[in-house]
Amino acid sequence: MAENNKLKPWQGWALFGGAMVAVFGLGLLCSSLMHRDGEVASIFNNRKVKMDKEIESRNDLFESDFPLEYETWLATADSSFNSEFCGQKKVDVLEERPDMVILWAGYAFSWDYTTPRGHMHAIDDMRETLRTFAPMTEADKQQPGTCWTCKSPDVPRLMAEVGEENFYSAPWSKWGDQVMNPIGCSDCHDPATMDLHISRPALKNAYAAMGKDITKATHQEMRSLVCAQCHVEYYFAGDKKVATFPWEKGMTLEAAEAYYDSIGFTDYTHALSKAPILKAQHPGYEMSLQGIHGQRGVSCADCHMPYKSEGGVKFSDHKVMSPLANIDRTCQVCHREDAETLRANVYERQRKCTEIRNKTEHELAVAHIEAKFAWDKGATDAEMQEALQYLRKGQWRWDYAVASHGASFHAPQEVTRLLADGLDYAHKARFAIARVLAKHGYTDAVPMPDITTKEKAQKYIGLDMAQKNADKKKFLDTVVPAWVKTAVAKGRLKAES
Amino acid sequence: MAENNKLKPWQGWALFGGAMVAVFGLGLLCSSLMHRDGEVASIFNNRKVKMDKEIESRNDLFESDFPLEYETWLATADSSFNSEFCGQKKVDVLEERPDMVILWAGYAFSWDYTTPRGHMHAIDDMRETLRTFAPMTEADKQQPGTCWTCKSPDVPRLMAEVGEENFYSAPWSKWGDQVMNPIGCSDCHDPATMDLHISRPALKNAYAAMGKDITKATHQEMRSLVCAQCHVEYYFAGDKKVATFPWEKGMTLEAAEAYYDSIGFTDYTHALSKAPILKAQHPGYEMSLQGIHGQRGVSCADCHMPYKSEGGVKFSDHKVMSPLANIDRTCQVCHREDAETLRANVYERQRKCTEIRNKTEHELAVAHIEAKFAWDKGATDAEMQEALQYLRKGQWRWDYAVASHGASFHAPQEVTRLLADGLDYAHKARFAIARVLAKHGYTDAVPMPDITTKEKAQKYIGLDMAQKNADKKKFLDTVVPAWVKTAVAKGRLKAES
Repeated sequence: MAENNKLKPWQGWALFGGAMVAVFGLGLLCSSLMHRDGEVASIFNNRKVKMDKEIESRNDLFESDFPLEYETWLATADSSFNSEFCGQKKVDVLEERPDMVILWAGYAFSWDYTTPRGHMHAIDDMRETLRTFAPMTEADKQQPGTCWTCKSPDVPRLMAEVGEENFYSAPWSKWGDQVMNPIGCSDCHDPATMDLHISRPALKNAYAAMGKDITKATHQEMRSLVCAQCHVEYYFAGDKKVATFPWEKGMTLEAAEAYYDSIGFTDYTHALSKAPILKAQHPGYEMSLQGIHGQRGVSCADCHMPYKSEGGVKFSDHKVMSPLANIDRTCQVCHREDAETLRANVYERQRKCTEIRNKTEHELAVAHIEAKFAWDKGATDAEMQEALQYLRKGQWRWDYAVASHGASFHAPQEVTRLLADGLDYAHKARFAIARVLAKHGYTDAVPMPDITTKEKAQKYIGLDMAQKNADKKKFLDTVVPAWVKTAVAKGRLKAES
Repeated sequence: MAENNKLKPWQGWALFGGAMVAVFGLGLLCSSLMHRDGEVASIFNNRKVKMDKEIESRNDLFESDFPLEYETWLATADSSFNSEFCGQKKVDVLEERPDMVILWAGYAFSWDYTTPRGHMHAIDDMRETLRTFAPMTEADKQQPGTCWTCKSPDVPRLMAEVGEENFYSAPWSKWGDQVMNPIGCSDCHDPATMDLHISRPALKNAYAAMGKDITKATHQEMRSLVCAQCHVEYYFAGDKKVATFPWEKGMTLEAAEAYYDSIGFTDYTHALSKAPILKAQHPGYEMSLQGIHGQRGVSCADCHMPYKSEGGVKFSDHKVMSPLANIDRTCQVCHREDAETLRANVYERQRKCTEIRNKTEHELAVAHIEAKFAWDKGATDAEMQEALQYLRKGQWRWDYAVASHGASFHAPQEVTRLLADGLDYAHKARFAIARVLAKHGYTDAVPMPDITTKEKAQKYIGLDMAQKNADKKKFLDTVVPAWVKTAVAKGRLKAES
């Protein structure tokens, strides 16, 4: 029996050989499952939908060749992760912070200002906001074509077709049946090579104005610069309303202010105080360069489009959103702390910024109201000059800090500095107005209107919101469906969209 | 000839064997040169100067057993590396920033305020500053014994000998011939075991008041807590002038303020504005906890006493100083950037804080002067209440931010926040004063005195600096040498010191 249990030498070798063959086969299998680099290369070299134009504005045409990127991009529709500046539903900021109605009196932001949503909503949100008016025809009062600039890959297509200046200077509604595909593939990628590319002239021009050549940017820099095409401070220059970044003197708030002052630019004259106001857009890119992550070369995509792996393929998550939704794939790539600690670090920075923001915002609102009171008491232009310049400077700092999304994390000290500086100017404005009032014999506290809700504040500055809302409803019910119908008929949009 | 060049087999083996022996010997030699752990252990177990007391106040007695630590500690005398808050020579801050004379009118800091120097200068600086007066006898006007608390290991020795309360409440000059050895070994180390220990009761009490047990602190925490015995906010509590940290409600500025308000504490009544002022000490430890390095568990010693290696022995550099002097051994232990980048990052944070600091400081100074003007115009206590409370809050924030050495790096956003908040209160104070003045019929700008130099500012607040300087010179020429003579005679100080 004992003898029989022993293997003969040839049996042992056969077993060994068999095992070797089996393990080798397993290895081949695993490798074929895990490594799909060849497949990826093959997709790029044998695309089902060949593209050779500089811009392909139809996002859906990219789906079959780039399903992972496309699916995650589609998911920007569902931005249900709620951070302060990011939510599935639009949050009515004016309702939460009625002082803002006062700050923007005389400007369309006082009518309607909601939190931004994902890229997929860009065109809907633009049509729906009261800020684009409700133009039933091209002759109606409305914004220029420039307002579409950041909303769609249809924009660079149109610019190529009609010319940049014609695109910008046309009435906004002229491009209503043209701009259909929300921010998508071709905005950042060359459709032929899928390399990152700059599709908007404003950024190229801004680089040139600084004496820099954007074609020399590294791939890592491009992973921020494609975002910087839109997430920046800009203004509409000249009669042609050309989208322009105020970077000629540098990329700080002070440099942009010096630039605007040098060309005598003002976005609007404040309806209450008559201050010449600069409205900040969203200088997220500039502010990110003021913080340690930007300074260390971390790109926007590193945190907002973190790498993801599916079926052995590594790709950038195109569901652009708050890094706090994916701490394991964002912060924790570099930082070894647990997710709750990292999240708390971000919230602490936001909380500290918000504290000063609230003060600055309120003092500015009060100052505008006091300025109006001074005008009503007979103050002269000359008397009011000092206060109005303080108001311009103060509100510019508040707006730049607040509008630069995410900056309380990207550059917490810089935001706090700007808000502190804005607060200083707001107080100085109030002090200057008090001196003017005293000259006119008024030394009591200025009576404050009730502006504790959005409705009350809008009524105080004389807005007829019922009319604006009714006009917008009519526009959305009639004009927009017609635009979409035309676009589908002309093949600018996938039929079921 | 060719045959002769060939080695015989036994010759080859002999050469090989010989080489082996030589290399083995070299290894032994290197090991003996490099590894001195045994030697270090031996020093600790066979100390030449045995110590069994809880405190050994004579620093020089540690030299023979701990030469590396002792030599580097001696080097704190030469703090020639110049950062903003650290220099070999005292920098006269009041000369550089005369507004501070105004802020501290009614308090000894308006007489004399210089930058801190290394630990070796602690006792000299304390004798020399005008703030300790010039007491020729114990009966003369002077500070309490509490002022010595942080200056010397003679202090815990004295506390053990005479009792804590007797130490604190005695006239400062009573301990002039007792407090001799500058901040040294026993302040942080148990002389018997050389373990880190807490030698001052105030920190233990503050921990107890927060419901925390300091004996549970980890070694890494102790590497900060030994510093936190002194580099904190504190006040002299009650008639006995007991050094006390205001941590009962927490370790933030707001928590300390709430504590002081709850016990009705005020450091001094401002000589111009009559505001009830809180003078911040140097809440460096508290502020470091508000920044990312502190929050990540980086200790004071990690950066201010970086590890060093000499002759194979690793030890903490006891030349406590700015980490920027040793970037290779401090920042670069964790951060992979080049030294110039790291240095620039620190300076950028300092520059941004300084910008807001300057504004806050000036507005506060102006507000004090305007308050005095209002009193002179007949303002009443009731009318001035609001402004004086704003001044208390504003100056507390400015002082806390400015006095917390290094905080513009340790916690840049928090410092900026505090200064912004202080600036807000300063403006509010000015506004409130302007309203009071208007009530009394005065609506012009308040005339400002010339306070552009330290001398002019000191003259404006009514100081006789010539007398103070003459008194101090007499004190330093006569009283201090007598103190040293007595101390040497009684063996409290090494003879040649």
